[in-house]
Amino acid sequence: FSWTRGENVQEPKVHQWIEPIDAHHQEEWGAYDAVILGVPLSRSSISASSASENPEAFRRAWKSFTTYNLDEDLDLSELRVADLGDVREHVTDISICHKNIREAMKAIQTNHPNALPIMIGGDHSITAQLIKGYKDIHPNERVGILQLDTHFDLRDLTDNGPSNGTPIRNLLENQVIRGEDVYNIGLHGFFNARSLKTYADEAGVNYVTMKQARKKGMEQVIGEALSKLEAKVDKIYFTVDMDVLDISAGPGAPAATPGGMYVHELLEAVQIAGASQKVCAMDIVCLDPTKDVAQATVKTGVHVMLSFLTGFMQRKEQ
Amino acid sequence: FSWTRGENVQEPKVHQWIEPIDAHHQEEWGAYDAVILGVPLSRSSISASSASENPEAFRRAWKSFTTYNLDEDLDLSELRVADLGDVREHVTDISICHKNIREAMKAIQTNHPNALPIMIGGDHSITAQLIKGYKDIHPNERVGILQLDTHFDLRDLTDNGPSNGTPIRNLLENQVIRGEDVYNIGLHGFFNARSLKTYADEAGVNYVTMKQARKKGMEQVIGEALSKLEAKVDKIYFTVDMDVLDISAGPGAPAATPGGMYVHELLEAVQIAGASQKVCAMDIVCLDPTKDVAQATVKTGVHVMLSFLTGFMQRKEQ
Amino acid sequence: FSWTRGENVQEPKVHQWIEPIDAHHQEEWGAYDAVILGVPLSRSSISASSASENPEAFRRAWKSFTTYNLDEDLDLSELRVADLGDVREHVTDISICHKNIREAMKAIQTNHPNALPIMIGGDHSITAQLIKGYKDIHPNERVGILQLDTHFDLRDLTDNGPSNGTPIRNLLENQVIRGEDVYNIGLHGFFNARSLKTYADEAGVNYVTMKQARKKGMEQVIGEALSKLEAKVDKIYFTVDMDVLDISAGPGAPAATPGGMYVHELLEAVQIAGASQKVCAMDIVCLDPTKDVAQATVKTGVHVMLSFLTGFMQRKEQ
Amino acid sequence: FSWTRGENVQEPKVHQWIEPIDAHHQEEWGAYDAVILGVPLSRSSISASSASENPEAFRRAWKSFTTYNLDEDLDLSELRVADLGDVREHVTDISICHKNIREAMKAIQTNHPNALPIMIGGDHSITAQLIKGYKDIHPNERVGILQLDTHFDLRDLTDNGPSNGTPIRNLLENQVIRGEDVYNIGLHGFFNARSLKTYADEAGVNYVTMKQARKKGMEQVIGEALSKLEAKVDKIYFTVDMDVLDISAGPGAPAATPGGMYVHELLEAVQIAGASQKVCAMDIVCLDPTKDVAQATVKTGVHVMLSFLTGFMQRKEQ
Amino acid sequence: FSWTRGENVQEPKVHQWIEPIDAHHQEEWGAYDAVILGVPLSRSSISASSASENPEAFRRAWKSFTTYNLDEDLDLSELRVADLGDVREHVTDISICHKNIREAMKAIQTNHPNALPIMIGGDHSITAQLIKGYKDIHPNERVGILQLDTHFDLRDLTDNGPSNGTPIRNLLENQVIRGEDVYNIGLHGFFNARSLKTYADEAGVNYVTMKQARKKGMEQVIGEALSKLEAKVDKIYFTVDMDVLDISAGPGAPAATPGGMYVHELLEAVQIAGASQKVCAMDIVCLDPTKDVAQATVKTGVHVMLSFLTGFMQRKEQ
Amino acid sequence: FSWTRGENVQEPKVHQWIEPIDAHHQEEWGAYDAVILGVPLSRSSISASSASENPEAFRRAWKSFTTYNLDEDLDLSELRVADLGDVREHVTDISICHKNIREAMKAIQTNHPNALPIMIGGDHSITAQLIKGYKDIHPNERVGILQLDTHFDLRDLTDNGPSNGTPIRNLLENQVIRGEDVYNIGLHGFFNARSLKTYADEAGVNYVTMKQARKKGMEQVIGEALSKLEAKVDKIYFTVDMDVLDISAGPGAPAATPGGMYVHELLEAVQIAGASQKVCAMDIVCLDPTKDVAQATVKTGVHVMLSFLTGFMQRKEQ
Ligand SMILES: [Ca+2]
Ligand SMILES: [Ca+2]
Ligand SMILES: [Ca+2]
Ligand SMILES: [Ca+2]
Ligand SMILES: [Ca+2]
Ligand SMILES: [Ca+2]
Ligand SMILES: [Ca+2]
Ligand SMILES: [Ca+2]
Ligand SMILES: [Ca+2]
Ligand SMILES: [Ca+2]
Ligand SMILES: [Ca+2]
Ligand SMILES: [Ca+2]
Repeated sequence: FSWTRGENVQEPKVHQWIEPIDAHHQEEWGAYDAVILGVPLSRSSISASSASENPEAFRRAWKSFTTYNLDEDLDLSELRVADLGDVREHVTDISICHKNIREAMKAIQTNHPNALPIMIGGDHSITAQLIKGYKDIHPNERVGILQLDTHFDLRDLTDNGPSNGTPIRNLLENQVIRGEDVYNIGLHGFFNARSLKTYADEAGVNYVTMKQARKKGMEQVIGEALSKLEAKVDKIYFTVDMDVLDISAGPGAPAATPGGMYVHELLEAVQIAGASQKVCAMDIVCLDPTKDVAQATVKTGVHVMLSFLTGFMQRKEQ
Repeated sequence: FSWTRGENVQEPKVHQWIEPIDAHHQEEWGAYDAVILGVPLSRSSISASSASENPEAFRRAWKSFTTYNLDEDLDLSELRVADLGDVREHVTDISICHKNIREAMKAIQTNHPNALPIMIGGDHSITAQLIKGYKDIHPNERVGILQLDTHFDLRDLTDNGPSNGTPIRNLLENQVIRGEDVYNIGLHGFFNARSLKTYADEAGVNYVTMKQARKKGMEQVIGEALSKLEAKVDKIYFTVDMDVLDISAGPGAPAATPGGMYVHELLEAVQIAGASQKVCAMDIVCLDPTKDVAQATVKTGVHVMLSFLTGFMQRKEQ
Repeated sequence: FSWTRGENVQEPKVHQWIEPIDAHHQEEWGAYDAVILGVPLSRSSISASSASENPEAFRRAWKSFTTYNLDEDLDLSELRVADLGDVREHVTDISICHKNIREAMKAIQTNHPNALPIMIGGDHSITAQLIKGYKDIHPNERVGILQLDTHFDLRDLTDNGPSNGTPIRNLLENQVIRGEDVYNIGLHGFFNARSLKTYADEAGVNYVTMKQARKKGMEQVIGEALSKLEAKVDKIYFTVDMDVLDISAGPGAPAATPGGMYVHELLEAVQIAGASQKVCAMDIVCLDPTKDVAQATVKTGVHVMLSFLTGFMQRKEQ
Repeated sequence: FSWTRGENVQEPKVHQWIEPIDAHHQEEWGAYDAVILGVPLSRSSISASSASENPEAFRRAWKSFTTYNLDEDLDLSELRVADLGDVREHVTDISICHKNIREAMKAIQTNHPNALPIMIGGDHSITAQLIKGYKDIHPNERVGILQLDTHFDLRDLTDNGPSNGTPIRNLLENQVIRGEDVYNIGLHGFFNARSLKTYADEAGVNYVTMKQARKKGMEQVIGEALSKLEAKVDKIYFTVDMDVLDISAGPGAPAATPGGMYVHELLEAVQIAGASQKVCAMDIVCLDPTKDVAQATVKTGVHVMLSFLTGFMQRKEQ
Repeated sequence: FSWTRGENVQEPKVHQWIEPIDAHHQEEWGAYDAVILGVPLSRSSISASSASENPEAFRRAWKSFTTYNLDEDLDLSELRVADLGDVREHVTDISICHKNIREAMKAIQTNHPNALPIMIGGDHSITAQLIKGYKDIHPNERVGILQLDTHFDLRDLTDNGPSNGTPIRNLLENQVIRGEDVYNIGLHGFFNARSLKTYADEAGVNYVTMKQARKKGMEQVIGEALSKLEAKVDKIYFTVDMDVLDISAGPGAPAATPGGMYVHELLEAVQIAGASQKVCAMDIVCLDPTKDVAQATVKTGVHVMLSFLTGFMQRKEQ
Repeated sequence: FSWTRGENVQEPKVHQWIEPIDAHHQEEWGAYDAVILGVPLSRSSISASSASENPEAFRRAWKSFTTYNLDEDLDLSELRVADLGDVREHVTDISICHKNIREAMKAIQTNHPNALPIMIGGDHSITAQLIKGYKDIHPNERVGILQLDTHFDLRDLTDNGPSNGTPIRNLLENQVIRGEDVYNIGLHGFFNARSLKTYADEAGVNYVTMKQARKKGMEQVIGEALSKLEAKVDKIYFTVDMDVLDISAGPGAPAATPGGMYVHELLEAVQIAGASQKVCAMDIVCLDPTKDVAQATVKTGVHVMLSFLTGFMQRKEQ
């Protein structure tokens, strides 16, 4: 029996490289350099968001990417990467969702602390849970944050709970992270209340506005932030809020604004971060694929993931 | 000082007729024939939804409608209608949202039980809360439900809590409503699990599929359901899930499906329901204006509201 | 020299049949059964409209239609039809536009009164000018109007001049047309002020709402209107406002509303009108192709034109 | 190790029911009631088309459907259905594609002639190959065609080869099918050249226009066509060109036109065809999901497949 | 009575800061630092435009902006700003619209010459009227123009009257402005006839093409233009045609073209202009929100307004 | 007879300048400086593409451009340019399409070798045929290629034939072009298999990644490539794959990716190429106008053509 079925025999693509693995086959975990975890939670967003659809959108978009980075002449397929699937979310109880997310990070850190975890959100509320989960397993590590964002994410939790406007404050108030260990790059314009800037300053949070970053150059700004962090913390958690993109480049990031980062700036920043020896995890959040145009933002998001892994490979070569 | 400002001096439009009122001016309430309440909650939806944006979308769309119904030669502006604004929602605690919604209905029933309440969702989870709030104030009334929906809304609450897939079951399990007092019209096709049909039958829930309804004619089917309900209950709560529309007519109802109701059928059904002496409240749910095309679904939703009020005026004339 | 160029050798399409003619070659005019005139004016619309782009949109869409009507087994290519191009419009002086439109109709009636003119709007303000132009040449003919519209188009001209909300009133107030000679079919819902209904009644304007029309059947309703008109007038001008379509079927008619006509109803009505011996001209207005979805409304508009010509051919065979 | 992963434990959905099977596991084939084959070929379309993307679009849309048909109280999951994947297509040699498609049908008929094959196109050119493949295995069967289409598909192959405008002529000229055994329902308007109608008449092809079908009712028209076919042929191949839909209902069928079928009419027709004892295969073609709006056409296409299987189950119960 | 209504208690947003004021409460005017006037006129556009919808689109988009500019650590809420509503427009007489606009500017200058007026168009034809209105009150001031535009706006008025292609010529021919006092920055490519360039040169109009501006840097180019203007005029009117944006950044500016300004360049230019002591008014024109994608252009337009006010605050601090 | 028809009497536009000429009027050919040929073939694309619609999209978009380049103060209307129409394509036999394209180029080179040919694709498979056609007439010329592309286009032809992934390999394997004579600028990221890079290196193909190009500046990179080519070849064929654009700037180039060229970089590169004395032809490929957003990519594509002609005029002035 032999009709010819459709099989793609062309160049290897990302979806053929990343291996979906079953949570129950834990024995294999040791073999992976990095693990990818979907976190499809966005009902915790202040504004209505379908960022929950993003992990699946990423997986579908993987087909558009090879594993080979031409700019760096480097093939990601030399890494073994597992797709752990999605954290299960509850429909009407966000605290259960947050607990599941924290548990997922704990499981990753317990079963295989050597794989680099990459989390695909979902909204920014997940970052607080992921870092808490990390710290549950590594309570003695001092962890810093490198954040690319249009916003401080320092809103008061007493109003509306652990939403996507609060993750950094959540971590500061719970003493999980010190203010001086947070570096936020790319903030700009009219998208943060003055009170949040005051809070940031009082908490010692570090930030570089987009205008400053463009003047200095992204390479230098990210480099300086990493150097300062590396000098004081044990590990750096890297979080990319896709709304840091300029609105002309990020239609699928509903909170993207005029004056933000351009695509080449973002990719450059991310690769540098990936190459830092102390960066121990990263997430990509606040990308709503249902609002995207021509898949521009989803594909840019996937490229962020791959540029980060490019840096990660370069790190190993250093 | 007198430059000419832009003032619409043409025919009276719905947004000029419906009066936004302040919650603190309760003394005026007695004067209203109907009150409109926005319920911008959709983070309780199983699938990602921006139905929370619908109350504001309705208010903007009011400008496209006059108060005069030409088909019936009847002017709604003879009614006094108040817009009570929106129930406040919490970002990360859905149970607080649901409590606020229930309280809002209680407040309406307490302060002015004679005004007909019309609730603009939001997703279908709100219906359970609204009817509970109604029953809190009228514990001795037997309340029935007339539902236009593609779905039974009888899913198990133990899995995912009081989501938009559960409101009728929620009411049945809490003995707020009897199964035999529920009439669901417009279900069809492959959009309900067999187990829900079994549950419906065991609970005595009544339903007419779209195929049956089209054969008999909407007028007769709705008329029969109302007659049967009027014979056994004190009051009828009317709930319109916009996903009952055929997918070609309801792009803004994300769960609309092939084989659903056409616009003229829906408007006819709604007007008849509005004319029933026992219908005491209605809601319109599961309309996500961010997914709409050419405003077709939002404008149809507003027309549902106005057709219901048309029936309400005709009821008074009987 | 002989490379193979792209030439469509398949079945004859409408754009290959309708002949663009130059205004200066008037000698040929006698040969035409019908003439098509673009009237790209929509800056006279109450709401912002790009209906001015519609004549060109029609011409591009002609490629999607053959000349052969399968339902009636009749080939329009037996008619000779000329495309006269567009009336020139002024950018900032609408009265010049209106004068040009009136002059264009006078030129058509002068040079070749035997060709059936079909005007592609533009907005409904053009109808008043076109009928005035017709009457300038045929002052002794009593002309009636058959209108398919969601609106009366009887607004007061003193407010905002001869906009697309006023053409019928314009004609009545100027004694060009008598109220009793106007038949408007398809009005419905909440889209006309009560005052306009009162005005219509006082002026003796005849109308059948969509609800009434659907009950009786389009065939009978149009037939009755034509019979009554034929009994009292010399000629009938037929005007189709595309916003008579239900909003689910007419996304490119910005004023289309819920409760309107479906496509098959509209096409049936138009063909019947085309077959009436006294119908002397028609126009198609208020279709904004820039708002269309999947070209649905533009293609329906072109089909309206072709269904009208189908009736016109059948008329000749009677 | 046990974090909670995302697993849908709600009602069974179509994608959980249909089993993807590997072409090499032929031993299992005997167990299936129906098999689904993707045929992602559309470079053979006259107009540019991405109907090749449709099989994958169908598979993704299966998640929106349960297996239970509420109208008929019948659960498709009692059938075993296999998804055979897609026929492999060649990028630049369409004749290879067509050969692969024919071979695929031969393989299906050879390995398991008892399973009902359902082919998801792709464009209409595939139908000629699929029927040829069927006849290769069953050379002595007289096969008829029931076609729902806006077009005759009788264009001359000498011009442009076996495109999507030619499948029926291809089959007639190659004596695979007799003209009198073709029944085409739903043709209408200005979308076929007169020459094709002449050809159809000379070849004895049977057809019912949409206008005629609507007058008689879809149930009767399809019933009559099936009765006549059943009386003379051994097997009936059922082919659904999605452009038979009215343009307001089929934005994703690029050749859909004004005056076509509405959704409920199409679903009714398909279910009746599925119930005919002699219908031996079906295909669904000319649906381009990249042009769809609100997934309306893709979901309607999937429902066509499920309504056909509903008829198939009812057939077995007779 | 106390259900919790929806009240945004989060950070202050622009729509909560800008105060809508009633034209009749003129006594309050003295208190305002700036006034905003909507000018919803676009029927004077050469190409069909819905820029008339832009003032309302701006007001809705204000909700997405705080009053605090993080880049400059400066809070606009220290300014008092009034929203004067929209100038009333006539539907069919553009000269009345233009007269109303001129009168509105006169009223502003008469009642409170100290408030900085910001006009939200509408199309570019309004600039001629606004400057004439300004000069009516300040006949002895020499006024210059700083223009960001892809076009000269120097078309001949004899052809089509005072359209959006003519405002600068209108002002030159009426001796309201001298050619040497016009500085246009950002012109480029194939979007102006050679004759307009000749006219510009003969009239002494100054301009810097986009290519030149990018080489020199926006900061220097705008700085030089302002310096030269400040040296010779009393007041500078600043006009921003949003079509100066590159087409990839300005989908909602229908005349945006390839080769235009990027968002960060535009915002930088505008802030510098706002800081000039002699800039006495500004407008933002030719933004059609109905054509926008992901609200990118509307939000960029609002940011232009806020960046201008940022410069205005910085000006006061100098 | 004299009604005023619509005639555009404003500035000369590109569609009024480029002269459509009939293939049979060959005598005129000597008069043209450049000729434009549409090549509407995209069924040879690996992914479904409607790039076949692009030549017509270009012609419609010409109306938005004048002939005058303000940046360079140069008027293209001093050139005579002919539009030769489109190469005829076959629906189901791609080899016939390719033969027709090759023949068309031969016809151009035979009849008028002095006119600069500009081909509007269609997909990139056409480039192999066009260069072969060129070499058929000029067998002794050594021809080099300057390519702007995200991809190498060096895929193996044995898999899927001469698709849009293979043109350069096609030319190398057939010894039409030497590897060392190919310069590809703009490749980047994860969009080429490593094996293609290996093949490129072995074949001696030259390339500059986007990252390298941005560091050096587009002007220098293109200048260097041209200098090297000019030193070794007789003629340079310039091919622009529109997917070289960054995905934020090229929504209508379905294969555009994050990290690509921005509009101003592309236009700069193209103009420089046009000015090279040895550039003998150019094509623009892989632009699918049906996927475009706000016409951004189509207008950028047309500007590419005009910027190339600008360089061409400057070349003559040197
Ligand atoms: Ca954030
Ligand atoms: Ca953010
Ligand atoms: Ca539902
Ligand atoms: Ca429901
Ligand atoms: Ca009208
Ligand atoms: Ca109307
Ligand atoms: Ca077909
Ligand atoms: Ca067809
Ligand atoms: Ca401009
Ligand atoms: Ca301008
Ligand atoms: Ca290429
Ligand atoms: Ca490419």
